[in-house]
Amino acid sequence: MRVVLDAMGGDNAPQVPVRGAVQAAKELGVEVILTGKRELIEDELSKYSYSGNLIKVVDAPESISMDEQPSKALKKKNSSVHVGMSLIKNKEADAFVSAGNTGAVMAISVFSLGRLKGVERPAISTVLPNLKGHTFLLDVGANVDCKPHHLLQFAVMGEAYAKYVLGDENPRIGLLNIGEEETKGNELTKEAYKLLKKASEKGLNFVGNAEGRDIYSGDFDVIVCDGFVGNVALKLSESLAKILAKILKEEIENHFISRLGAITLKPAIKSFKKRIDYAEWGGAPLLGVKAPVIISHGSSNAKAIKNAIKVACQFAESNLNSYIEKNIEKYG
Amino acid sequence: MRVVLDAMGGDNAPQVPVRGAVQAAKELGVEVILTGKRELIEDELSKYSYSGNLIKVVDAPESISMDEQPSKALKKKNSSVHVGMSLIKNKEADAFVSAGNTGAVMAISVFSLGRLKGVERPAISTVLPNLKGHTFLLDVGANVDCKPHHLLQFAVMGEAYAKYVLGDENPRIGLLNIGEEETKGNELTKEAYKLLKKASEKGLNFVGNAEGRDIYSGDFDVIVCDGFVGNVALKLSESLAKILAKILKEEIENHFISRLGAITLKPAIKSFKKRIDYAEWGGAPLLGVKAPVIISHGSSNAKAIKNAIKVACQFAESNLNSYIEKNIEKYG
Repeated sequence: MRVVLDAMGGDNAPQVPVRGAVQAAKELGVEVILTGKRELIEDELSKYSYSGNLIKVVDAPESISMDEQPSKALKKKNSSVHVGMSLIKNKEADAFVSAGNTGAVMAISVFSLGRLKGVERPAISTVLPNLKGHTFLLDVGANVDCKPHHLLQFAVMGEAYAKYVLGDENPRIGLLNIGEEETKGNELTKEAYKLLKKASEKGLNFVGNAEGRDIYSGDFDVIVCDGFVGNVALKLSESLAKILAKILKEEIENHFISRLGAITLKPAIKSFKKRIDYAEWGGAPLLGVKAPVIISHGSSNAKAIKNAIKVACQFAESNLNSYIEKNIEKYG
Repeated sequence: MRVVLDAMGGDNAPQVPVRGAVQAAKELGVEVILTGKRELIEDELSKYSYSGNLIKVVDAPESISMDEQPSKALKKKNSSVHVGMSLIKNKEADAFVSAGNTGAVMAISVFSLGRLKGVERPAISTVLPNLKGHTFLLDVGANVDCKPHHLLQFAVMGEAYAKYVLGDENPRIGLLNIGEEETKGNELTKEAYKLLKKASEKGLNFVGNAEGRDIYSGDFDVIVCDGFVGNVALKLSESLAKILAKILKEEIENHFISRLGAITLKPAIKSFKKRIDYAEWGGAPLLGVKAPVIISHGSSNAKAIKNAIKVACQFAESNLNSYIEKNIEKYG
């Protein structure tokens, strides 16, 4: 497997991507092609004692900033993202990973690689931990205004990813809604429900409406929604977890006796953090384009980058995309 | 102040509402009129040593179940909700509190009391704790498909409530969106942004887009959104807080040393729970109808009911509704 890693993407680039690439090469034995400003990358690489031949550098002199408009980024043909996509198009690489500007990576991916047959709207998805394992949520921001059949396509793509990459045998698919009953929802979800129900008669494992609480209940493996709602849910979750931890910490500090006991909690808190740590999951797959693209969090650390590379390999090794095309035709 | 309390509303009715009524009468000196099945209520009341004359019972023989369709509930003219609303219409009471079926209470309120002048869509709102205090979020489920000017009206109503009941001097209003920039969002929020910006030129304290993370950041006092997104955000928050606590507890039990220290945490955890406890806030005001209506959580305890009665009094004592009508005209 040959994975392109955008060395210029993320809040701490190229330091973090380069460290992640070295870890991936050493620990996973994956070939990593770093795209970006050659000099900066090679400077950074020289800090590591890696002497193998699994890491390559391909120069890409243009930069895309974290808040650049996708339409502007699309025009920078020599950016680390564009150059990486060309490698994939020319069959010199199998998958792409970036912790950079989500909108830009998505736009350039769709433009350069093209959409899978039948897929109208590629979706950004995310893996969220729950009490029993994980929930795969999509779309989380690529498509803010959706038609009912887009949600059906998200269900098909989500099911495929859960099955082939996350290892869920027969993923239970839910439609994010405001009540369990079939008649609940807004115009979009009421219509989407009908389409999903119809697809379930042809074999899709649609189990019904999921509510906000079900994103973490473990009762669904895949939950579909429009990208506006998904984005709010994702950002809300990230911040709420942090804030609850902060409130707990404040209260521990406010109580002398609790402060004494807090030290004994360290092992538990470490395991707790590991369980809810996004870095374990590597990143957000962009589904519906013709090659595996994983978009990692801008604040990813090297471990998150390494895990994203791992996930990109699993994605590339599976026949996920042909399964999606087949099912889009079957259920669409 | 005379507050009608739906004695039949909630998961544990009439026990919890009756206990809440007794607490409100004793601690707040408020007159509480309990509506519902007279015999059941009087049986329950006889368990308390309350001997004052602040609690009254008005018989309402019909029941509305927690999951009854609002359209069906509307027809039950002798339900505890209908009978309570009639008391308000006839000026025999000033405000209404229920922990019952939200959709039914909302529908009967709008039907019986009518909407405030200029208000197109009454909204259900909620007070959420954050690091610095609270955020007032609306709509959380009454209006799942909104037009841009509905969001403007929610902003006007939210500002009024934050000012008159929550005590925020000059509440900072945000529009729930997927990015900070003015150009971000779906069709609804892009248009709503323009209306809110225009209103801000006339004096509304609209400070811009709020993201999912801002619901708990403390940077906004009032956040407006359509009822679909708000409902997902609310249910997600409730469940995530519970699940994180559960994961932490599991991890503490998994680590012997942490288990030993956990007992010292009790005071901190107690304060933590108090800070994030919905019972402190009493309930969700329904804004935009002609009298104060507070809808409490179905699982409310007596304290939450008492606090809802307190909030209903504050609402009724303020000139919130005339302020809303004036501002709907000013900004509308």
